[in-house]
Amino acid sequence: MADGAASQVDFARDGWAASQWFNSEEPPTLASLKGKVVVLHTFQMLCPGCVANGLPQAQKVHRLFPRTHVEVVGLHTVFEHHDAMGPVSLKAFIHENRLTFPIGVDVEDSFPLPRTMAHYKMRGTPSLLLFDREGSLRKHAFGQVDDMVLGADIMALMQEGPSPS
Amino acid sequence: MADGAASQVDFARDGWAASQWFNSEEPPTLASLKGKVVVLHTFQMLCPGCVANGLPQAQKVHRLFPRTHVEVVGLHTVFEHHDAMGPVSLKAFIHENRLTFPIGVDVEDSFPLPRTMAHYKMRGTPSLLLFDREGSLRKHAFGQVDDMVLGADIMALMQEGPSPS
Amino acid sequence: MADGAASQVDFARDGWAASQWFNSEEPPTLASLKGKVVVLHTFQMLCPGCVANGLPQAQKVHRLFPRTHVEVVGLHTVFEHHDAMGPVSLKAFIHENRLTFPIGVDVEDSFPLPRTMAHYKMRGTPSLLLFDREGSLRKHAFGQVDDMVLGADIMALMQEGPSPS
Amino acid sequence: MADGAASQVDFARDGWAASQWFNSEEPPTLASLKGKVVVLHTFQMLCPGCVANGLPQAQKVHRLFPRTHVEVVGLHTVFEHHDAMGPVSLKAFIHENRLTFPIGVDVEDSFPLPRTMAHYKMRGTPSLLLFDREGSLRKHAFGQVDDMVLGADIMALMQEGPSPS
Repeated sequence: MADGAASQVDFARDGWAASQWFNSEEPPTLASLKGKVVVLHTFQMLCPGCVANGLPQAQKVHRLFPRTHVEVVGLHTVFEHHDAMGPVSLKAFIHENRLTFPIGVDVEDSFPLPRTMAHYKMRGTPSLLLFDREGSLRKHAFGQVDDMVLGADIMALMQEGPSPS
Repeated sequence: MADGAASQVDFARDGWAASQWFNSEEPPTLASLKGKVVVLHTFQMLCPGCVANGLPQAQKVHRLFPRTHVEVVGLHTVFEHHDAMGPVSLKAFIHENRLTFPIGVDVEDSFPLPRTMAHYKMRGTPSLLLFDREGSLRKHAFGQVDDMVLGADIMALMQEGPSPS
Repeated sequence: MADGAASQVDFARDGWAASQWFNSEEPPTLASLKGKVVVLHTFQMLCPGCVANGLPQAQKVHRLFPRTHVEVVGLHTVFEHHDAMGPVSLKAFIHENRLTFPIGVDVEDSFPLPRTMAHYKMRGTPSLLLFDREGSLRKHAFGQVDDMVLGADIMALMQEGPSPS
Repeated sequence: MADGAASQVDFARDGWAASQWFNSEEPPTLASLKGKVVVLHTFQMLCPGCVANGLPQAQKVHRLFPRTHVEVVGLHTVFEHHDAMGPVSLKAFIHENRLTFPIGVDVEDSFPLPRTMAHYKMRGTPSLLLFDREGSLRKHAFGQVDDMVLGADIMALMQEGPSPS
């Protein structure tokens, strides 16, 4: 992790803090995704509800919606069992679960929660945050989200015109 | 069934033909629902896929979306086992499956398919037709439809402005 | 229905009363199945839990266990919506749900419950009764039964030796 | 791992080789479980099918059958991503998935498969081995096993008398 870079995170601009990325050459930021709806899915690899429901749903969003309009970003927000969920384990987990969207590792320099998780006051994993095409946070959900509701929420944001500039 | 009335069906205006309605005092028509997205769910009460997947999904749409914007209409399109699926049986079926949206009985005066089913060239049950707020047919699906896809499709039509008049 | 025959039912010998049978040339009775474990699955064709869980489970027992040792018998115990669940409807239902084990129609000459249902004081549908190889009732369950439990229960009875005669 | 102890494994007597145990004060062996049916469930913590199906099924067997008659033993047979699935990770995984039966770590001194996995020529994870009350291997399955089949298989072995001694 590049401590310097991560310490300069501006959440309004960047959306999240991450010390490392998988499935992405360039670290994605909210600013770099402007114009797209962004689905931020936060999880822990040892959280059973994330493995069974949350991550398959995130992968489904990634498959169903055109990447020109919707970007799925995963974030590994470890707040327990740190030794068991390091980047080496996460890399194998991503491979075994065939996750293909960009996945970052939340910055562990705050206590007890990693930095992005603390910033958004997330209550646990999985959590889902929806940002509109302008980068504004529009939905924040903890736990299982219904597929039909999520499909409708994403489409509603997709069809909003960009704000006047 | 009022044969006279049913024989004068104009599908562009009425959307469907029905000899009888349940869960509705006034027979709904496409014209009477103008301004709303209309989800037409066609089924047979003895079709296992309809009981297990199609009808619960239709009921879920009815529960999740505001009725001011989205109307779910069921249509019993019997094309086999006619003796087993008459209106008396359908009424009990609707009660036992706790279906609360309007459900019509497709008119059985054509052969081998009932009239609405034949008009739209449906391939079987369940079939799902989506009409936009202007009453134009926008989606026609046979078999199981994914919840996330359907949620997105309905929301896309909800957010379309009405056509200029 | 042969009223005469049905009125002479001896439950200890026959196991159940039925006015009509499907999927069976000879009306099965407990006595005729002596030596086999008998799974009596009672249902109503408009009971959603029967369609979704009970009947697929009964069909699975019929498929997994050798018919030389285990016999599945279905019984349509109608206690509501009688007009909607007559034999004509049941026949179509059996066909559409691809049920291949013998299915009888419980005798409707008692009120409010049909005769077999009343005799065993069943609480509703689905109900499952397990008879051992000697024809003794060994399990009586109402509602959903776990597959692992049922598999173990049937095997336990299969492995019991016949009583000395 | 006590290399000395593990290197002296006699599979006919011990059933499996393990370098470490969780949820068990005494390392269980086939010999120490003589008289009980033994369900050996082998898995990898990053195998999605194990998390979704295999391990919940093993936990269900542990809950449903009396421990006086049936013992469930888990074995972590790592053959890929070794760095990601070490004992520290496994311990957290066991806690998060609320697994309460004894779980050992297969001995990684053979290549490419760990020792128990190689001995039984297992094809992957999950694999399930059933031993009878005498310690003889009676079933060897790879992949998902049906609950009803497994319940019946376990009960069949439970009801076998012990061999004459």
